[in-house]
Amino acid sequence: MKLNEDRFFDPDPATRRVARDLYDTTRELPIISPHGHVDPAILATNAPFPEPTALLVSPDHYILRLLHSQGIPLEALGIPTRDGKPVTADPRTIWRLFAKNWFLFRGTPSRAWLDYELHEVFGVTRSLSADTAEKIYDEIAEKLGSPEFTPRRLFDRFRIEVLATTDRATDTLEHHRAIRESEWKRRVIPTFRPDALFAIASPQWRGQLSLLEEVAHNPVKTFEDFRSALAGRRKYFKTMGATASDHAVEVPHTERLPDREVEKIFRAALDGAVEKRDQARFEAHMLMEMAEMSLADGLVMQLHPGAFRDHDAKLYDRFGSDRGGDIPAATEYTRNLRDLLNAYGNDPRLTLIVFTLDESTYSRELAPLAGYYSAMKLGPPWWFHDSIEGMHRFRARTTETAGLYNTVGFNDDTRAFCSIPARHDLSRRVDANFLASLVVRHIVAKDEAVEMARSLAYELARDSYKLGTA
Amino acid sequence: MKLNEDRFFDPDPATRRVARDLYDTTRELPIISPHGHVDPAILATNAPFPEPTALLVSPDHYILRLLHSQGIPLEALGIPTRDGKPVTADPRTIWRLFAKNWFLFRGTPSRAWLDYELHEVFGVTRSLSADTAEKIYDEIAEKLGSPEFTPRRLFDRFRIEVLATTDRATDTLEHHRAIRESEWKRRVIPTFRPDALFAIASPQWRGQLSLLEEVAHNPVKTFEDFRSALAGRRKYFKTMGATASDHAVEVPHTERLPDREVEKIFRAALDGAVEKRDQARFEAHMLMEMAEMSLADGLVMQLHPGAFRDHDAKLYDRFGSDRGGDIPAATEYTRNLRDLLNAYGNDPRLTLIVFTLDESTYSRELAPLAGYYSAMKLGPPWWFHDSIEGMHRFRARTTETAGLYNTVGFNDDTRAFCSIPARHDLSRRVDANFLASLVVRHIVAKDEAVEMARSLAYELARDSYKLGTA
Amino acid sequence: MKLNEDRFFDPDPATRRVARDLYDTTRELPIISPHGHVDPAILATNAPFPEPTALLVSPDHYILRLLHSQGIPLEALGIPTRDGKPVTADPRTIWRLFAKNWFLFRGTPSRAWLDYELHEVFGVTRSLSADTAEKIYDEIAEKLGSPEFTPRRLFDRFRIEVLATTDRATDTLEHHRAIRESEWKRRVIPTFRPDALFAIASPQWRGQLSLLEEVAHNPVKTFEDFRSALAGRRKYFKTMGATASDHAVEVPHTERLPDREVEKIFRAALDGAVEKRDQARFEAHMLMEMAEMSLADGLVMQLHPGAFRDHDAKLYDRFGSDRGGDIPAATEYTRNLRDLLNAYGNDPRLTLIVFTLDESTYSRELAPLAGYYSAMKLGPPWWFHDSIEGMHRFRARTTETAGLYNTVGFNDDTRAFCSIPARHDLSRRVDANFLASLVVRHIVAKDEAVEMARSLAYELARDSYKLGTA
Repeated sequence: MKLNEDRFFDPDPATRRVARDLYDTTRELPIISPHGHVDPAILATNAPFPEPTALLVSPDHYILRLLHSQGIPLEALGIPTRDGKPVTADPRTIWRLFAKNWFLFRGTPSRAWLDYELHEVFGVTRSLSADTAEKIYDEIAEKLGSPEFTPRRLFDRFRIEVLATTDRATDTLEHHRAIRESEWKRRVIPTFRPDALFAIASPQWRGQLSLLEEVAHNPVKTFEDFRSALAGRRKYFKTMGATASDHAVEVPHTERLPDREVEKIFRAALDGAVEKRDQARFEAHMLMEMAEMSLADGLVMQLHPGAFRDHDAKLYDRFGSDRGGDIPAATEYTRNLRDLLNAYGNDPRLTLIVFTLDESTYSRELAPLAGYYSAMKLGPPWWFHDSIEGMHRFRARTTETAGLYNTVGFNDDTRAFCSIPARHDLSRRVDANFLASLVVRHIVAKDEAVEMARSLAYELARDSYKLGTA
Repeated sequence: MKLNEDRFFDPDPATRRVARDLYDTTRELPIISPHGHVDPAILATNAPFPEPTALLVSPDHYILRLLHSQGIPLEALGIPTRDGKPVTADPRTIWRLFAKNWFLFRGTPSRAWLDYELHEVFGVTRSLSADTAEKIYDEIAEKLGSPEFTPRRLFDRFRIEVLATTDRATDTLEHHRAIRESEWKRRVIPTFRPDALFAIASPQWRGQLSLLEEVAHNPVKTFEDFRSALAGRRKYFKTMGATASDHAVEVPHTERLPDREVEKIFRAALDGAVEKRDQARFEAHMLMEMAEMSLADGLVMQLHPGAFRDHDAKLYDRFGSDRGGDIPAATEYTRNLRDLLNAYGNDPRLTLIVFTLDESTYSRELAPLAGYYSAMKLGPPWWFHDSIEGMHRFRARTTETAGLYNTVGFNDDTRAFCSIPARHDLSRRVDANFLASLVVRHIVAKDEAVEMARSLAYELARDSYKLGTA
Repeated sequence: MKLNEDRFFDPDPATRRVARDLYDTTRELPIISPHGHVDPAILATNAPFPEPTALLVSPDHYILRLLHSQGIPLEALGIPTRDGKPVTADPRTIWRLFAKNWFLFRGTPSRAWLDYELHEVFGVTRSLSADTAEKIYDEIAEKLGSPEFTPRRLFDRFRIEVLATTDRATDTLEHHRAIRESEWKRRVIPTFRPDALFAIASPQWRGQLSLLEEVAHNPVKTFEDFRSALAGRRKYFKTMGATASDHAVEVPHTERLPDREVEKIFRAALDGAVEKRDQARFEAHMLMEMAEMSLADGLVMQLHPGAFRDHDAKLYDRFGSDRGGDIPAATEYTRNLRDLLNAYGNDPRLTLIVFTLDESTYSRELAPLAGYYSAMKLGPPWWFHDSIEGMHRFRARTTETAGLYNTVGFNDDTRAFCSIPARHDLSRRVDANFLASLVVRHIVAKDEAVEMARSLAYELARDSYKLGTA
């Protein structure tokens, strides 16, 4: 099997012709990956990838969730339990189970991504099914043993110009340091994510705070100490190459609390006597603080709101986070972001990139906000919307109000290293197709579309995330 | 007039070719109708249908509402008033009024369905208009008098394999019994719908409870009595062939209340002293009870939330329910369904089929939930969305996240017996067209699409509703 | 450069052929402009337009906001500050800045409208860019000096049959009077917009009330005085040709308050002691009053809810309203409009035209409501949705449930006089294309589509707004 050269393009011949031409102008461009979840240890150690299941199945929560939805327990997929209860260990058994259920993914982006990985990255020629499972496993396993398939070789083959990871504010960034200090001169940078430090009502918070005190080499006794420690961490992240922070909140409320109020809430947190409701207020305040720090240190601020985390409490208890049990909820931006935007939204020193899981806000709130405030940009379609139809809807519903130049190109947002080129290829195709639909309807001229395609595939991500110079 | 063979297919020649091929593989498949509102008396008595107006106009609330929206009072459409105030009685007068206003339905699914009924079911060759009204009326009336147009003959001609009706929990199911005891060996089954018994703040509740006591042959003095009576009724419905229950609530909140609390609310209801707010809590609790009973008795649980019933109070006073005056409202699932899904959502004994009138939840909440919890499936586009564009949106917004195999095929959900084949034909065409759009964009292969088309047209409904064996 | 004759049509050849045919049947129809914001002084004085920047850039908040979103301050665009702080004054400098940033508008409706204005209205042959800015400026400036480009000549050239403006309830309508008393026999009519008088918690309210007392020649001491004055103003607007009122509220809540309650709130307002919360209740009540007055005087009632006005407080402080800083918010109709619709929604004397900025309500709430209540009609896609994709979504999501005949054709809603034909042309093209998509899918016949196209382009606006006879 070879992937069709015209995949994901509209079948109308005129549109397809233009889409192909536009895609051709972007397919060789380097990859800017300004937001994602690849483990930097992979590139720091450059150890060969273990075997196909551990590489392609286990770390992919898109795959886990859909198999789970059809009654396949995560134990059967080899996901380790927190209490150490044994699970299926043989990767071949898991791979066969996965292959047998591969039909479930028809019409999903996971199918498109994995097809790319199998056929373009690993050169597999058969289609995946119960019958071909073993052969394909062997084929990939063999490749993984060869030097061309080590992480750094793939990094170059994928043409990655910059890869940003996402890292806890308390992370020592040792792998990033190791990469920087190595002879391997590629750009792998961290992103500052302090969420766990803002979750003051969580049982884990004290532990997180201790980590902060440790990496900051300073006790945190007051809110002012806390703020200083955060500013210090941001500075350290910058020395490790970071250009951005990232913030995930359930509700993107922003509000500056009076100093006395913040201090009081923070003290209650230190005393372990803070309520969930106060955590929400604290988070709203911390988003204001983060924006203000961005004015000073220039970190691009990313906001990823609206995920109800660990919706299935039992799954969380058994396997921990990021196993497919997070569910989006309706999200409001117009009122919630007002305080932040009124304070900093037109400050040329701030870039605020906002994502959503609630598509009803694309045309109603997000495009109007990004089409007015100079600091605010729209992040690409996120998570469940990072797909052919999802990307098309994003462009169709935001471009008319926000234009193209208030968006930031593409993020692959992936944990799965080998899916990076698959996701960028899909995105470039869908964007080329969207632009082609403008050309054939005489909304923009073809030479304009060529420029726009380059912006979407490369320039907007590079420039919005300040990745133009190392 | 003949219906165009390529109706509802995309005009792009490549897409149309594939859509036609896919549709051809499904057009002769039997009809599974797992959810609808046909009166079982029609098939129990097998009496000839009266005349065209009573068959095609009066029982169709889609038609009534659109005529009403243009200032035609329901009295002029022969709808009986609750106080017996006289209304237009002559069916021909009503038919002429309807025909004269037939242009209003351009672009609506009612137009597509009725065109099918006129031309495919009744062999009418003219287009409906003021000019042709009389002739077409006569033509249909004549057909209705012939033996080939009796309900049971049509049932076979429509190739119905199973027809599920929707029945109050207190229904004696006499017509179902009559059918089962007759020599006519076709499958017409009831669905258990206990809503009226959960509406404890309604003035009608006491009457409903009395009916329950009667059919259960037991007094209901406590909540435990109530629960037992419900379990008993579910059992009886099962003996009559039921495989599913159905639940309509305004807000799909689920929450298990403490026993004492439930008992207290139930006692207040018996005393006629319950508040609207407590009804909502009671309903939330009863959904938990229903799910639990499903674990035991295997009834598939359907949830139809989000309709604001009887929005026009005057219409309700004059004509009662189901006359076109129900309006959807925004609906939340992620938080509301959490308790139920955390308790039973991964139990292999439960199938929970969720519908919505709020399309903004397709990609935001429903597809992510169904794409994770193994018990949850997505019902087909419901009511106002049971249309060409509506069905396309459903597939385009749910498939990428939930896949196809977490949906349950098609429900016609109709009160109008003769519209059953019309609705299934439209659905099969729209699904074929959707799948064709995947094929021509090389998202799935054609042989995969053939399997998917069969699943959507037949297998998913049969299997999700446990209708595979009689 | 010439605009492509097939612009905005689907590229599929069959669809395009039909779209072109349908568009051809509507392109010469007169323009009905039943809702907009053109300054009537333009037509009363008929003074030549000043120069290109003042005509095309400064008054267009769509242009201002997008330039602002890319960091161009409004001062650099010549927008006068409220405190008189100087701003860029040279229109050529502003024009050059605008032209240099014209690429930002790719894919937005502003681009399509301005292209039409440049090429169709002003006969410009070059494309706008930094290089051509000066030449194009000169070309337009020259045209503006010639008699064919005076407002009244353009009015005729644009084939405007009726132009409705939007006017404060306290407006003296002197320009409308001047037009009516002139020898120029064209129809320019006011629209009654009393919002400022309902904003009883606003610091500006007392000033507005004084204006009302002045134009009503009566003191307003009680709510009854207030109501009489409003009824009187409505009457006056009618004598000046008005056929409609217009109401903008943040939340479209409707509720009749008890007389005593209204009187109490109104008295508090007179005492300057009313709270924001009571303003909302007062507005809900006033919508009921307005509907009731419409029964008596026949003014068509328009409702434009859901804009969060002056979202950027600093922008408002510096430049005042209508500079691009309004942002939509989620809006609820099913529950909010219930009281009004229950009271008047089926009264043949009322026409209620409802708009939205929240597309998620198209299929969920608005189409179902308009498809049932005889008084309610759907206004065209508004503001951020007045675009190629936006209009298509409106038709695709409302037609199946509300039909075409519960919508009211097109409103240009513009402040920019020269954009009127551009906007109607775009709308006619998009509607023709939508209808063509129905024809090629055999949903309606072509002769039906021809009738539908005429309704959308001309008849529905004329009839819904009662503009059939002068």
